[in-house]
Order: sequence, then C-alpha cells, then structure tokens
Amino acid sequence: MKSLVLDGINKALEYRSYGEAVPQDGEVLVQVKAAALNHRDVWITKGMYPGLQFPCVLGSDVAGLHKERAVVINPSFNWGDNPAVQDMSYNILGLPRDGGFAEYVSVPESHLFDKPAHLTWTQAAALPLAGLTAYRALFSRANLKSGEKVLISGVGGGVALFAFQFALAAGAEVYVTSSSEEKIAKAIELGAKGGANYKDEAWHKNFVQQYDGVDVIIDSAGGEGFKSLIFVANPGARIAIYGGSRGKMPPISPQILFWKQLSILGSTMGHAAEFSDMVDFVAKHKIIPVIDREFPIEDAGAAFERMEKGLQFGKIVLQVESGE
Amino acid sequence: MKSLVLDGINKALEYRSYGEAVPQDGEVLVQVKAAALNHRDVWITKGMYPGLQFPCVLGSDVAGLHKERAVVINPSFNWGDNPAVQDMSYNILGLPRDGGFAEYVSVPESHLFDKPAHLTWTQAAALPLAGLTAYRALFSRANLKSGEKVLISGVGGGVALFAFQFALAAGAEVYVTSSSEEKIAKAIELGAKGGANYKDEAWHKNFVQQYDGVDVIIDSAGGEGFKSLIFVANPGARIAIYGGSRGKMPPISPQILFWKQLSILGSTMGHAAEFSDMVDFVAKHKIIPVIDREFPIEDAGAAFERMEKGLQFGKIVLQVESGE
Repeated sequence: MKSLVLDGINKALEYRSYGEAVPQDGEVLVQVKAAALNHRDVWITKGMYPGLQFPCVLGSDVAGLHKERAVVINPSFNWGDNPAVQDMSYNILGLPRDGGFAEYVSVPESHLFDKPAHLTWTQAAALPLAGLTAYRALFSRANLKSGEKVLISGVGGGVALFAFQFALAAGAEVYVTSSSEEKIAKAIELGAKGGANYKDEAWHKNFVQQYDGVDVIIDSAGGEGFKSLIFVANPGARIAIYGGSRGKMPPISPQILFWKQLSILGSTMGHAAEFSDMVDFVAKHKIIPVIDREFPIEDAGAAFERMEKGLQFGKIVLQVESGE
Repeated sequence: MKSLVLDGINKALEYRSYGEAVPQDGEVLVQVKAAALNHRDVWITKGMYPGLQFPCVLGSDVAGLHKERAVVINPSFNWGDNPAVQDMSYNILGLPRDGGFAEYVSVPESHLFDKPAHLTWTQAAALPLAGLTAYRALFSRANLKSGEKVLISGVGGGVALFAFQFALAAGAEVYVTSSSEEKIAKAIELGAKGGANYKDEAWHKNFVQQYDGVDVIIDSAGGEGFKSLIFVANPGARIAIYGGSRGKMPPISPQILFWKQLSILGSTMGHAAEFSDMVDFVAKHKIIPVIDREFPIEDAGAAFERMEKGLQFGKIVLQVESGE
C-alpha cells in the first residue's frame, strides 16, 4: 500500500509504496478516505517534537471505512485510567505508531467511532484531534455552561474553531481574537458576537469597554498576551490553555488570581469517553467542521506549506480517495 | 463598651470606651469571649489595605455568646449568589464594619454558627477566617480526595495550619515547607509525612527524589518559589493559591501546564455554605486549632508585634474575657 513517508527531519514527504498495515492483536484495518493535518505533523517534519524516529507515517486524524462501517478514529493511545491526566505512556496516532496519511491504517477496534452521518469524509477527518482537544478544554476543564461568555483566542486554528463551534452549540455567547481582520470577520459571520485584533496593544481595554468581561477563555498561545486575557477575565473565570505558541506566560500577580478567584487550567487532548461524547455532540448539534482546503494526498507538500504559513481558517485535509 | 480602636495608619491600638454596638435590622449582639488576629489586621494598621477609614475596630475572628448560645461568627459579608466568586460589595468583618476586638459586636443572626463543643473560646476564635479560607482552597477549589498527597507551603500561618489539619483529617498524606526547621519539626510532630526548607534552593529536587510528587498544593506566597511548586506537582495536580506574600509568580511555560494538565486556582475566603461545612468538619473530626499564644486584649500591641514578625506557629488570640 502507499503511504506518505517522512524519511527524516526537513526531508520532503513522499507518497510511495511502504509495506503493509498489519493489524496486531485486537486491531483492525481502516481504509483511509481522508486525513487531516495538525500543527503536530508540521512540527514533526521540522524535528520539533520529542520521540522522533524515521522513516515514519504521520497523520492523527482519520475518517475511513472498516469493512462497511464508516468511522472516525480516536487518536489518543494509552491515556490510562485517570480522567484528570494521561499516562506516561500516552501517545498520539501518527508517531510512534504509523498514522493515517496512507491508504490503510491499523488501530485497535476500540478506537473506532461511527462517523456522524451528516459529515463528508473530509469533514469527518477534520474532527478527531482538534475536536477532542477543544471538547476537553471547553467542557471537562473550563466547565462551560449555557449562557456564559466565552473568548476564543487565535481563531482560525483547528482547535480554536471547534471550541468556537462547540461553545455556540452549547448556548454560549462567543467572542474571538485574531491577528487577522479577515478571520475575525469570518468568525462573526459564523456567529461570534464580537472580535478583537490582538495586534492592537489596547485591545483588552476596548474589549471590556465594549463587551464587558468573559467567563471562559480558551487559549493556545500563552506569551505576553496572556496578561490581556487575565484582564478580560470576569471574576470566577476559567482560562483553559492547550498550546503555547507564544512561549511563557508573563509574571502573574497572585492577588489578581485569588481575588478574582480565577482558574488557569492546562489541557491537552482527551480520553476515550471525551472522544465519544465529542462525536455524539457533533452528531446531535449537526456541527460541520470548518474546512480550509482539501488536497489530494499526492500534493501533501503544498498542504504542509499552507499550514506552516498559518494562512488557514479551518482544517486542511488530505484526500486519500476522492471525497464523497 | 470598650473596643480596641485604631485611629489611623501606624497609630498605636487603644483599648478604650468607644460608643455602643447597636444591632441594626436582623442583627444581634454577641458578647466577645475571644478574637483572633489575622495578617489582614496587621496590614490595615500599616495602611496596606484598600478602603481604610478611621477610627475603626478591627477583628474578623470572633467566638462569643449570643444570649445563652455559644457561637462563632462567619466573617464573610455580601458574598452574593455565585459560589464561584464573591460579589463586588463583598467585605470582611472588621473594616468597614466594626469588628470583634471589642466587648461586643453586632452582626446579622445568619452569621452565627454553633461553636463546636470540643473547643475553648480561644480555640474557637482561631477558626473563622483562616478555617474558611483553608476549607475553600482545599476542598471547593483543589477538590482534595482521601489518599492524595498534599503539600502545604509556609506552614505556621493560620490558613496553612488549618489546611494542614483539614487535609490530615480528610485522609490525605501531608507534606509541608517552611523557612524554619523548627516549624517543619512541629508539623511532623502533628502528623506531616515530611517537610522541606524552601531556603534550600534545591529543595524541590530533593523533595521529589525522597517523596515523589504531590497531587494538591496549597500556597500563600507566589513569587519565584512558585516554580518549585510546579516542579513538585504531579501530573493532574491542583495548586490553590490564596495569598501572594512573595509577589508575582515567575513566567510559566504553557507546555508544562497543559502537558501535566495542571490547574492553578485562585481562592479567597468562602461563602456561607462553606463556612457551615467547615464548622461541621471541625466538629466531626474534633480538630483543635493550633494556638500560638493568647494575649489579654489590653496587650494587643504585643500580639500585633508578634504576628508582624512572623514568629507564630498557629493563631494569635486576644482574650476579651478570661478563657474557659
């Protein structure tokens, strides 16, 4: 079978014959229909990820067929028994285990979940990693309730957009930040109550003046800008952080934390029950993932380049066979 | 009646005749038997507190008699309806409202709770503010469970010692830090499994080597030392912070927060249901507050000086009449 093979750091990805996917005990074969990109995949090609080994096949997000069953794959492996945190042996589909950028992928049957019927292969492939991350951060960690105000920072990324759509579906009032006016405008089209451009250094003050504060914040950046998030956080707010693209958070005053009774909550990925709940939530609310662009897997190089440049609004998906 | 009057910043406290405590609508008179000091009282005498007005009568912690009923007073006023955070109008007994360093204090009857029968007046007076703060931080915020490992930083202070005793009573394994070997030794006598001197810059590494990590941390300091707390935090750990005596926390890496799924939880004081639960918990587990020293209210100056120097291990209590 053909796989998108990465032979080493900064090597070009090659779609070529590369052995066979051989199911181990309890595993089954899934014929990949579509597989989405994540920042993780790009970082691995650059060598910016622990535990590299080559050659390898990336791809954490798969929609496909197991026999006649249309499925999406839970990419979380070895979470363990503690819902609060993953086990030391935790790993994600697509390194060290061969991933879904291939014609077939082999995974334990317990990782298969029914593809929500209203989604195309491409839309379903967009779901697993980013949907799971957003779901845990928003609901399990930040405990979002209907009617609350939510701020999604850096809208445009996969997790941010799912957090955005999930929060809307849960009955929240949703606000966004971005460095792109175009992305803010798109988010408002999709239902955001308002947005702010974080390149404006006073955005947080204007935001509070215009909209008051927010009850929940979902952030993937950290960095100096985290100060502004604390500024717009209402008393009692929960700030879930699932990424650190801007580096360390600045020094924070304990007095602000305790007087405002804030919660800063690290969150990554999610466990099997959260994956199951997330897929049910998407099916129930007929949520359609935002797709930035589809590429045939043969053009994976262009897809990776687009993600690396951060141009996307929504998920970038590789089609392994033609989409529905 | 006589009250301990503060006439201005850095003025000496004077125990003298000072009007009468006149109950307003729904209020009742409590004859003060004992009243404990908090850091808050010291900071107010130094002018380091918002909303100062003089002359005033401090004292947030009262045990006394309402008619025949032995009571402790919930010092939390105007918390409001949201258990997650106090209202903007929230305030604490003993500024702006006249407090308990007096022969009588007038409070709404709803603020009276039965004094746990196993406690002396002095022990009961030690309970309200510090016990409430510790209870909310440990249980409502950090959600401590039996069998977990807890680290109490800066043991010796009132809240820290209650958090220590409550955690022990809840079936946790408790560890402490202090800058004083004597305080660490006392904590071990009281049931701590181990302790570390945070003046030793490598304490966190030695701690993890000797005891592994901890599941819950209760901190009142912040400052550079907060890094070491994150180091000793187990994956999934909750760190509740209720004070900031060492200033801002250092820059924190989001990657550590989200990969370890840590929670940093600001916490201050508590609401009426938490106060009620706390008093019940103390009664049920027959917890006896650690008393550092008692002073007759006439010697309040010496009591304040002792607290300011940070010499105490446990609560400093003023006796308004002779203790039981």
